[in-house]
Amino acid sequence: MKNLGYYNGKFGLLEEMMIPFNDRVCFFGDGVYDATNATNGKILFIDEHIDRFFNSAGLLGIKLPYSKSELADLLYEMLAKVDSDINFVYWQQTRATSPRNHAFPDAPSNLWIMIKPATLKPYDELIKLTDMEDHRFEYCNIKTLNLIPSVLAAQKAEVEGCDECVFHRGEIVTECAHSNISIIKDGIFKTHPLDHHVLPGIARAHLIKACKANNIPVDETLFTMDELRDADEVIVSSSSNFCMIAGTLNGAPIGGKDHQTLMTIQNYVVDEYHEYCGIK
Amino acid sequence: MKNLGYYNGKFGLLEEMMIPFNDRVCFFGDGVYDATNATNGKILFIDEHIDRFFNSAGLLGIKLPYSKSELADLLYEMLAKVDSDINFVYWQQTRATSPRNHAFPDAPSNLWIMIKPATLKPYDELIKLTDMEDHRFEYCNIKTLNLIPSVLAAQKAEVEGCDECVFHRGEIVTECAHSNISIIKDGIFKTHPLDHHVLPGIARAHLIKACKANNIPVDETLFTMDELRDADEVIVSSSSNFCMIAGTLNGAPIGGKDHQTLMTIQNYVVDEYHEYCGIK
Repeated sequence: MKNLGYYNGKFGLLEEMMIPFNDRVCFFGDGVYDATNATNGKILFIDEHIDRFFNSAGLLGIKLPYSKSELADLLYEMLAKVDSDINFVYWQQTRATSPRNHAFPDAPSNLWIMIKPATLKPYDELIKLTDMEDHRFEYCNIKTLNLIPSVLAAQKAEVEGCDECVFHRGEIVTECAHSNISIIKDGIFKTHPLDHHVLPGIARAHLIKACKANNIPVDETLFTMDELRDADEVIVSSSSNFCMIAGTLNGAPIGGKDHQTLMTIQNYVVDEYHEYCGIK
Repeated sequence: MKNLGYYNGKFGLLEEMMIPFNDRVCFFGDGVYDATNATNGKILFIDEHIDRFFNSAGLLGIKLPYSKSELADLLYEMLAKVDSDINFVYWQQTRATSPRNHAFPDAPSNLWIMIKPATLKPYDELIKLTDMEDHRFEYCNIKTLNLIPSVLAAQKAEVEGCDECVFHRGEIVTECAHSNISIIKDGIFKTHPLDHHVLPGIARAHLIKACKANNIPVDETLFTMDELRDADEVIVSSSSNFCMIAGTLNGAPIGGKDHQTLMTIQNYVVDEYHEYCGIK
């Protein structure tokens, strides 16, 4: 099939599937999700994504009526039915289907899955960044379906011909519309600490693993927009494009000053990806 | 009918209607809404609600393919088909139906409507409040479908046997899970100024109108949780229950010290409501 959707036991093409009007996602965005890339029939770092998904659900009090392995089995069963070699694998749980009322209803939660073809950017492409004040809520550690600020940021990037939009709270860089952001300065890898202002990115964790394996110091600390502009290298990471190199911010060149450290990190995570997915 | 739903030209019972999986509300909560009470066949302050709705849509760049009067006509046409005398009238516009991608797609937006029976609280009932740190985003002036923090606050109220939850940013009171909040102190009506931290409530505007008509000074300025605890009266307002009196905060008594000013305001807005809806 060209793509595949799932909602509470029903399967179909994404563009043909229907869901209940009273699913609480429709009125409150009341749900959590996770997503990753699948290449060559392997769902990248699936266990880490499912762990984070269960954590997101727990933080919002959304009950998941299946085990982690049952979810993984279903994702793999669906992936096998989609034609493309590279896919976006996405799943979400919404709190319930119930007449609109803010407080939690006594009703079961709903599982949604989508699998659709994806393309990965080449690793050596220099991406373009814009920026925006980070007006998001303080639950950014939870992967929720309340994503309007990220939509606005992604749209700003699109309009300006950029690839991503850097969020900053005042001068402090947090993350991007749908990626984490890290810098290399004087041989040190710097990235925002894990708190309620950033998502605990799986790709971010693998970048840190790459640094530790290669004796590159890791500094999980706040950094500013000025430090971003002055960085030796700027890395933008997500599970779809997990070690992108940024080349400009608002049209001005950034990074490009420590190719060796950058390549050490990128080669490590690309090798990990290739190994996981069985790519020679 | 016992209730009535609408989605892009289709009508049905709310619990039977279906919407497309790819409506962007499902992944991003990407839409805006407005809602009010209808009594006796009249939709309360409909023009003000539709004005605010058009403003919310404009602020997020969601295009509305109808005029204000066309929307009002459709709401009235649907209201006439629902049995109850008192109804909740709710409508929302979601950005588009399109494969999941953060940036805006080139596709038309979707209109949703729900009309269902409602009950109003008696005006003399003293409501119970709890409180919670306000971790919401800084787009609270826009009536969006990104409502997880309000859901969590309403659930906290429910669990604690309260009617509403007061949000505060640090010590500053902003609003409640689904109401504005105002205080009377020394004969002055105080309420949070209109900015990105509160919704421009229609009921709030009518409370201010009531004050001005009765020579009660209005102070649209920040006030703290201590000022809330120390207030002469505490008013919680929404379009469903537009002048509720709070009696406790976290179980401790609040207000109850300026019945005369409170009644002057409440009587004015209740009279306005009765007049609008043709209630003798």
